[in-house]
Amino acid sequence: MNYTDSNGLPDSISIAEYLFHRLKQLHIETIFGLPGAFNATLLDKLNEIPGLRWAGNTNELNAAYAADGYSRLKGLGCIITTFGVGELSAINGVAGSFAEHVGLLHVVGMPPTSAQTKQLLLHHTLGNGDYKVFHRMASEVTCYSTVINDKDLCGDEVDDCIAKAWTLQKPVYMGIPVNLVDTSVNSQRLNTALNLNLPSNDEQTENELVKQILQQLYKSKNPVIIADACVTRHRIVPETVELCQRTNFPIFATPMSKGAIDETLPNFGGVFMGSISSPEVREVVNFADFLIVIGCMLSDFSTSSFHFNYKTKECVLLYPTSVKFKHAIYPDLRIKSLMANLLRNLNESKIKYQSQPTPQMIIPRSELPSRHSLRHEWVWNQMSHWFQEGDIIITETGTSAFGINQTHFPHSSRGISQALWGSVGYTLGACLGASFAANEMARDQVTAVPHRVILFVGDGAFQLTVQEVSTMIRWGLTPYIFVMNNQGYSVDRFLHHRSNASYYDIQTWEYLRLIPLFGARHYETRKIVTVGDFLEMIHDPLFATNDKIRMLEIMLPPMDVPQALMDRWLTEQENKKRAAEESDGYTPNSEASSKKFCSDDISPAN
Amino acid sequence: MNYTDSNGLPDSISIAEYLFHRLKQLHIETIFGLPGAFNATLLDKLNEIPGLRWAGNTNELNAAYAADGYSRLKGLGCIITTFGVGELSAINGVAGSFAEHVGLLHVVGMPPTSAQTKQLLLHHTLGNGDYKVFHRMASEVTCYSTVINDKDLCGDEVDDCIAKAWTLQKPVYMGIPVNLVDTSVNSQRLNTALNLNLPSNDEQTENELVKQILQQLYKSKNPVIIADACVTRHRIVPETVELCQRTNFPIFATPMSKGAIDETLPNFGGVFMGSISSPEVREVVNFADFLIVIGCMLSDFSTSSFHFNYKTKECVLLYPTSVKFKHAIYPDLRIKSLMANLLRNLNESKIKYQSQPTPQMIIPRSELPSRHSLRHEWVWNQMSHWFQEGDIIITETGTSAFGINQTHFPHSSRGISQALWGSVGYTLGACLGASFAANEMARDQVTAVPHRVILFVGDGAFQLTVQEVSTMIRWGLTPYIFVMNNQGYSVDRFLHHRSNASYYDIQTWEYLRLIPLFGARHYETRKIVTVGDFLEMIHDPLFATNDKIRMLEIMLPPMDVPQALMDRWLTEQENKKRAAEESDGYTPNSEASSKKFCSDDISPAN
Repeated sequence: MNYTDSNGLPDSISIAEYLFHRLKQLHIETIFGLPGAFNATLLDKLNEIPGLRWAGNTNELNAAYAADGYSRLKGLGCIITTFGVGELSAINGVAGSFAEHVGLLHVVGMPPTSAQTKQLLLHHTLGNGDYKVFHRMASEVTCYSTVINDKDLCGDEVDDCIAKAWTLQKPVYMGIPVNLVDTSVNSQRLNTALNLNLPSNDEQTENELVKQILQQLYKSKNPVIIADACVTRHRIVPETVELCQRTNFPIFATPMSKGAIDETLPNFGGVFMGSISSPEVREVVNFADFLIVIGCMLSDFSTSSFHFNYKTKECVLLYPTSVKFKHAIYPDLRIKSLMANLLRNLNESKIKYQSQPTPQMIIPRSELPSRHSLRHEWVWNQMSHWFQEGDIIITETGTSAFGINQTHFPHSSRGISQALWGSVGYTLGACLGASFAANEMARDQVTAVPHRVILFVGDGAFQLTVQEVSTMIRWGLTPYIFVMNNQGYSVDRFLHHRSNASYYDIQTWEYLRLIPLFGARHYETRKIVTVGDFLEMIHDPLFATNDKIRMLEIMLPPMDVPQALMDRWLTEQENKKRAAEESDGYTPNSEASSKKFCSDDISPAN
Repeated sequence: MNYTDSNGLPDSISIAEYLFHRLKQLHIETIFGLPGAFNATLLDKLNEIPGLRWAGNTNELNAAYAADGYSRLKGLGCIITTFGVGELSAINGVAGSFAEHVGLLHVVGMPPTSAQTKQLLLHHTLGNGDYKVFHRMASEVTCYSTVINDKDLCGDEVDDCIAKAWTLQKPVYMGIPVNLVDTSVNSQRLNTALNLNLPSNDEQTENELVKQILQQLYKSKNPVIIADACVTRHRIVPETVELCQRTNFPIFATPMSKGAIDETLPNFGGVFMGSISSPEVREVVNFADFLIVIGCMLSDFSTSSFHFNYKTKECVLLYPTSVKFKHAIYPDLRIKSLMANLLRNLNESKIKYQSQPTPQMIIPRSELPSRHSLRHEWVWNQMSHWFQEGDIIITETGTSAFGINQTHFPHSSRGISQALWGSVGYTLGACLGASFAANEMARDQVTAVPHRVILFVGDGAFQLTVQEVSTMIRWGLTPYIFVMNNQGYSVDRFLHHRSNASYYDIQTWEYLRLIPLFGARHYETRKIVTVGDFLEMIHDPLFATNDKIRMLEIMLPPMDVPQALMDRWLTEQENKKRAAEESDGYTPNSEASSKKFCSDDISPAN
């Protein structure tokens, strides 16, 4: 039975209903945002579609973060905001999706066309009759933006917007004037699947490049594969894993792709973070004679990656829609087709590489007295042992973003972080979105195991977006929220010459009391102060089952940081010293770099 | 003693210090924002200036709202954010200041010039090397925007930015790359006061117009003065009051200027809100033969005001920088000079107007049984009697924005609301900013009486920006926070055909418990359910003294609204019915307008 029949749709439906059915066909079933005067009629339509739900966020920025988190697991997120105030509140979240290659559809309920034409003064305008200003602003952080205005073409326009957000994995902006919400569309359109095909690559170019890559691949003696963030965003994880398995090449993640590649693969070697990688990882990657970087996220060719350069000169960088091979740039090559071609033509027998042992992540199981207070280094190692298959692990910009890279992710677990955009507070929203997605994936049995959603967020970051915990409770979602309480913005404090400036302090909250305050009935909270508290928690088998929302406050000393952050700090001091000697005199941390580093400085009191 | 000597400043200071001293000279002593990697060095400088304080907000949108609230009392607000993530989070607040004519300086700490030139990939960029994108976006909602880059001119640039924000009462954007924070400026510049003079009006034009206005003014028999929002923003309250006193003309406020004009003036007649004004107000204003509207906020000439048209055809509209007199437009006339000219040439003996009694706001003191539950109508009347001299009264977009217009403000009280931009959640931030400002004004004895800061915010709106209550507690500020709990977004629910759609519901919180959770030690909370509870509260003399932070949860039925909102709803139904018959078929509320209105629908259960 076709879609319209099985959903009992009449021949003519409104453009709003059409939009929501299109999303439903892609299994995008939770829509984020807040109601407002100009989007209420859209929400009325949404409410009528069985199987879709309106999350009802607590503010628009959180809604955008949530849609982003949802998209990272389901391929597309959708937010609906109201004109002006709503859309601008969300724009930082949209920009984050743009920076990090996350597919997002931002639907904005707009004033009626007539008001726009007559430049009427309405609520949520700047009072100057300019109704295009917010659209112009949105166009700076979206890959495509449009305002629905042609009644005959609006079906095509909706298809186009969704397809672009899905395939390009960037935000798309679509304004719908309130008077056009009811514009009728022939529902039969829904019986033809949305065209989500990418344009084909030029065959000759693709073949030529594949041949060259294979030549290099066959002859290299110390090759390395690096899977970057776009392997998930552009859906080439299976191809990447196949390449790794058929070549037996060692494979590494980056901080942005942690969790994208199954870490139980025998040749998975850990996370490459340039100079702050573990010595074993650094050795293998830096001394590779051929680097295959798949799913590069950054579109700048001058730097090969974020925070670090690949030392290897023989390098192929596979971006979503282009390739850099050695010194040549191949624009307009889409990665999915290219990878398929590569795998089709790969002949394992020609590979010279002699399999060598890949660095293994050995997570120490150090024993400490129960009464000891907690330290990052120990906590992250313990966490690593607590993770289980299917976990969705979210880490906030801050100490957690560094700590997580020293953990080992089990089979079919996933990681979410915002390593490039780094908007503090992002993860509480993303955790909501991921929890909705995990729910739906479990129901649909997309993967073999159910998913626990586990968030690590600093106390400082937590305060920015705290109210979204309420939405999790409202929907009975069951994430683990680990609030890493180190009394302020520790990562900034640490990197800004380990300053004790008062502007890094935050107000002390009783975090755990928020859960009942926000209306939770079935929940668990724990304040974890000592090693004993921590061990009791992770050894409790009941604790491992995500049957309720949990908030865990992990008490950590303010100046204690994971090793990777310490390493980055040391590296930056070196770089700054050098930069100060050369360039334009930018030495903000000169005070620190001239101060001898002394590891005692960060010893805890106990 | 000059400024540099009395502050013990060396000859050469950094541009950052220069900026902060300039703000200090204007008594702008609290700066809002959050720390980040690219603004930390700016904050280091700020911390060194005695007399200035860094508010340390919980997120950037709240910080922008706070700076806006502060500015409405002190003439200018300043926020400092970090590049990309920080500035975009604030941009909805900045747009609000733009729409509502509020002077705001938005300082953005930017990556070093060298990184920008080399298009390095840094945190908080879109990953495409474009370092100008956020500046372009900001330029859409600011009256002036710049990035400091010329070491020789940066002193002038800072002066220019502050002067523009102060005199034009709009936001200004100033980016400071982190490597230029230490650029040295001659501190002697500080000994010359900032030039805050507006360009002079063309003398002939001004004289010609004043003559015409006076002719009309002298001969009119039923003249009316309306003071709109820009009388405070552009500092012409004294001139407006003088005109009212010397002419004896009746004067009215608008919803946007409520609190701007002393309501104890004998010829103050109340708030004019077009068709939803009280019958007495409507009669006087609609039948005036000459309307003098001073300090119009909206720059569109086609509509004479927001939500309503003035029926009177003989009308002079004095905008901040232009005038519309009858059908003629006079661009480039600044209001301050024009008003001074008008008052200089006003000859009271020529006035024909025979003083008539001005409508008086009579606030009913209806008595209800103690056990009665609360209704908006009664609550606002009671509030009116509880207000006292000097109060700063802040009302959120929602039911409060309507209720407040039926209250009477005592002498030297002030009103804050965001009637045009209407960004839900604005007032919690604005309340923080106003509380800082009230503190400083009390210390400086700017006005004869101390100021209580009183906020009315709906439960729905409260949730958007809740964390800013924590900043109030951190600083020991003592506002009254009335949470008008009517279980959701009532104003939207009401205006959207009084819908019971689930998207207007919100999660129920235990609001009062937030105060201790956020760390308050000295505080008062009350849950006000009945008439008796309410009367006990407002008759408690201890309650009237703002010696601690207070949160009061006022329980109201979901569909109970102030009379003005009911009137607006009825008017809108009429308009929509008419519009549906004519125009492009925009009848979102047709369901409601075709439904006979029945006042029983909103009766409370009791």
